[in-house]
Amino acid sequence: MIKNAVGRLVPTEVNGVKQTPFQGVGKFRPTGKKPALPIRTCSDYPADGNKTVPSLKEALEKCGLKDGLTISSHHHFRNGDLVMNQVFDIAAEKGVKGLRWFPSAAFPCHKPVLKHIENGVIDWVEGSLNGPLGDYASRGKMKGTAILRSHGGRWQAVQDGEVQIDIAVIAAPTADAFGNATGDRGPSACGLLGFGLVDSIHADKVIVVTDNLVPFPCVPWQIQGQNVDYVVVLDKVGDPEKIVSGTTQLTKSPDRLYIAELTARFVRDAGIMQDGFSFQAGAGGTSLAFAIYLKEMMKEAGIKARFIRGGSTKYLVEMLEEGLTDFILDGQTFDLEGVRSMRENYGHVNTSPFTSYNWHGKGNFASMLDAVVLGATEVDVNFNANVVTHSDGKMLHGIGGWQNCLFSKCTILPIPAFRDRIPVIVDEVTTIVGPGELIDVIVTERGIAINPLRKDLLEAIKDSDLPIRTIQELKAEIDDLIGGPPTKPVLTDKVIGIVKWVDGTVIDSIYGIKV
Amino acid sequence: MIKNAVGRLVPTEVNGVKQTPFQGVGKFRPTGKKPALPIRTCSDYPADGNKTVPSLKEALEKCGLKDGLTISSHHHFRNGDLVMNQVFDIAAEKGVKGLRWFPSAAFPCHKPVLKHIENGVIDWVEGSLNGPLGDYASRGKMKGTAILRSHGGRWQAVQDGEVQIDIAVIAAPTADAFGNATGDRGPSACGLLGFGLVDSIHADKVIVVTDNLVPFPCVPWQIQGQNVDYVVVLDKVGDPEKIVSGTTQLTKSPDRLYIAELTARFVRDAGIMQDGFSFQAGAGGTSLAFAIYLKEMMKEAGIKARFIRGGSTKYLVEMLEEGLTDFILDGQTFDLEGVRSMRENYGHVNTSPFTSYNWHGKGNFASMLDAVVLGATEVDVNFNANVVTHSDGKMLHGIGGWQNCLFSKCTILPIPAFRDRIPVIVDEVTTIVGPGELIDVIVTERGIAINPLRKDLLEAIKDSDLPIRTIQELKAEIDDLIGGPPTKPVLTDKVIGIVKWVDGTVIDSIYGIKV
Repeated sequence: MIKNAVGRLVPTEVNGVKQTPFQGVGKFRPTGKKPALPIRTCSDYPADGNKTVPSLKEALEKCGLKDGLTISSHHHFRNGDLVMNQVFDIAAEKGVKGLRWFPSAAFPCHKPVLKHIENGVIDWVEGSLNGPLGDYASRGKMKGTAILRSHGGRWQAVQDGEVQIDIAVIAAPTADAFGNATGDRGPSACGLLGFGLVDSIHADKVIVVTDNLVPFPCVPWQIQGQNVDYVVVLDKVGDPEKIVSGTTQLTKSPDRLYIAELTARFVRDAGIMQDGFSFQAGAGGTSLAFAIYLKEMMKEAGIKARFIRGGSTKYLVEMLEEGLTDFILDGQTFDLEGVRSMRENYGHVNTSPFTSYNWHGKGNFASMLDAVVLGATEVDVNFNANVVTHSDGKMLHGIGGWQNCLFSKCTILPIPAFRDRIPVIVDEVTTIVGPGELIDVIVTERGIAINPLRKDLLEAIKDSDLPIRTIQELKAEIDDLIGGPPTKPVLTDKVIGIVKWVDGTVIDSIYGIKV
Repeated sequence: MIKNAVGRLVPTEVNGVKQTPFQGVGKFRPTGKKPALPIRTCSDYPADGNKTVPSLKEALEKCGLKDGLTISSHHHFRNGDLVMNQVFDIAAEKGVKGLRWFPSAAFPCHKPVLKHIENGVIDWVEGSLNGPLGDYASRGKMKGTAILRSHGGRWQAVQDGEVQIDIAVIAAPTADAFGNATGDRGPSACGLLGFGLVDSIHADKVIVVTDNLVPFPCVPWQIQGQNVDYVVVLDKVGDPEKIVSGTTQLTKSPDRLYIAELTARFVRDAGIMQDGFSFQAGAGGTSLAFAIYLKEMMKEAGIKARFIRGGSTKYLVEMLEEGLTDFILDGQTFDLEGVRSMRENYGHVNTSPFTSYNWHGKGNFASMLDAVVLGATEVDVNFNANVVTHSDGKMLHGIGGWQNCLFSKCTILPIPAFRDRIPVIVDEVTTIVGPGELIDVIVTERGIAINPLRKDLLEAIKDSDLPIRTIQELKAEIDDLIGGPPTKPVLTDKVIGIVKWVDGTVIDSIYGIKV
């Protein structure tokens, strides 16, 4: 273990791979090169372009499924994925052991995978572990160590060769026999396939699995057949209704609505809401409410955005279709209106972690955003924030694009003062996922705290009627109400996971919970 | 020099690089890996996404322009490019020597480059040399050896690391300050930028040059800003009227119209013209006339194509808009109707040499085509064909996608029996660009010859009223008419260029002309 630039102890080696400790924002300079990929030849692929094989099992066999491989998948179906449990059932049936599953995220629907971790088919899952898999890992039961990365960090890890994918399994709502695939149409349409794009480019073998095989060409080709080895047709690859998974319910809580309104007022009154501006808001209930408040303020002021970054929802689609923004630059569709809009609207653009978030490119979109509105499980008095562990220390969430978004010109975290009577502002977050220097504003129902580093924002807002406080004042008031600061979670010494920064360095360790 | 699989002597080393002789269609297996590219970091690029620099000169300086570098460019403006002459003027002004210019193609508009070859700024041009540059090279005056590649071969050479591009200069009709760029809109719209795509991905430094800077984001982003270093705004980057360059004039010659009609009848009567079929026809006058004949036959028979491959022209656009095909898969727009259609029609799809032609991928589109109609300068009695040298031995043409297209299910060359009273069918072509085993049908105004290897086609057509002949019969009749076979061109012993096969091996040498 070594202490990194934010004072956290992090392991120097994880799952047999040497790690670099976090060195500060923008401080780590990559050396070396991306991996040299094998040269393919059309001689090895059917001239008529037909790469279909009769079953997922046969495709996996042709890909050389065996002990110790890394199998990847994307999470555009979120909690509606119907493919990956089948993949590991097949691996189990064939007696394969010691796999690494490298999803962009796992969801509660993947709970059946737990039995394959128990029985040794899977050594560890490397990706966002939402819900049951996170709970399992938190109990110290996973053989390998969890590695949490942002969406951009996952692209970076693959393109830089930190993770070599042996077999990518890409569930696709529509595909042709050559392997061209899209998410924006078909009975299981989920919008886009951007989280699987780097897998398709870098994996040794790529399987496209679809329930809607169309004659060549499948257009658009979000995934290009020139990167694909085999195509498999299943009855159903995903349940698009479960994309929604409760993330797009508007909040009804008066406190949260008030927080959302304060956030929108801040964006307006700090002068960020200007013609041609841009913003990103997530899919949580408060973020959605923020977008609705902001929309009304934009209409009132006659302001039009140049672009909005999604996760898209029907609320953003309305803004596009009402002419309140020129573009939605969308990384994942959160509801079926988002899917429709991406298919129909020129201004609703399919993006990928490469375009939006990859830190190891020649720039990305995230730093161009005028404002981004994000959630957090905890924030500390130094503005460090946590999104992966709960107040009880359990690792129950992935990072998503959260770390990447922190590079926007103004990062705002609207958070409730309490959750289940536990204060959200703490002395020290359980897990540092984002360093305080990148977090500009905290909005609670008890006031707004601006990071003292952002003198420009303090100046911009000084004549407004917004309830501006220091974060210490906010914390003191909240702690007072429950009779003192919250108790820290009781954790073991065992590192059950690490959190990567956007540049591949390790920003914090996640410890097991006492069970 | 070594004899290759088609019996041609080819050099084992060219411009200091070891070469592999052609080993037969599909016989060469690539070993080794693609080059490992450097890892970039956003730390080195402006957070606000603004990569503009005030001048092309400054951009080239920032890219480290110096002696011996390789500078690349695309040819979507064809004879209307206004950028590359400026680039080499700047290099000359700075006293830079020994550059390699690696365009996807050079045109007569690049004649001013000759002076930079004369004065040592450029050592050699590696790319299709149409017109004056080809003439110059044919006279043995270029310091280095010309290397001709197909569109797919150029992608292959870059991705496999045979050619390392130091600075890519990408002229773009529309771009944003981040470097996102598109060809489908703006005052100089040329359709697409696919020939520059591999350059943008693999070059060490990438400059986007535009005359239409739009606020971020430029959508679509045919070129991705994440691969771009600098953006330069010029008054005018290209003359879109000169894209046309005479290639889209319908032939008025009665002989050529008859050849075009025979070709269409062959496609119909051989049973290739079926619902859901596909074809590709180039932009020459005869090919265009073929498409028009075929269109009428399709309408008459109530047949609809699934896709047509372009080079697009207004004739193909009409077929798309009249519902005679679901898709145009387009690699370059040959007229302004093609540009408009690509911008407006969902079914008019922007492709690249990666999707369509690259032999070192997991398949490509070319082999899925039911029929392809191509030109040739010469054909021999073994169906070998030439597209790069004229009957006088001068290297005046590039290969384009021609070699790549030969992989279609039926390759048809409609050619006149004579050009300027010189027979086009010869005993042995001056330069083998395509091996006879891939060329299925020769159509002349004196009859149609089917490659004896294609017994299926001979069978399919046997009851038709088409004038089917053997190629020997055709040749004998043509030679008789002018009193004997044509005289061979008088060439020197000096290899002034080589022709690469789609897999990077050398299929033939091009010799200098006697001057």
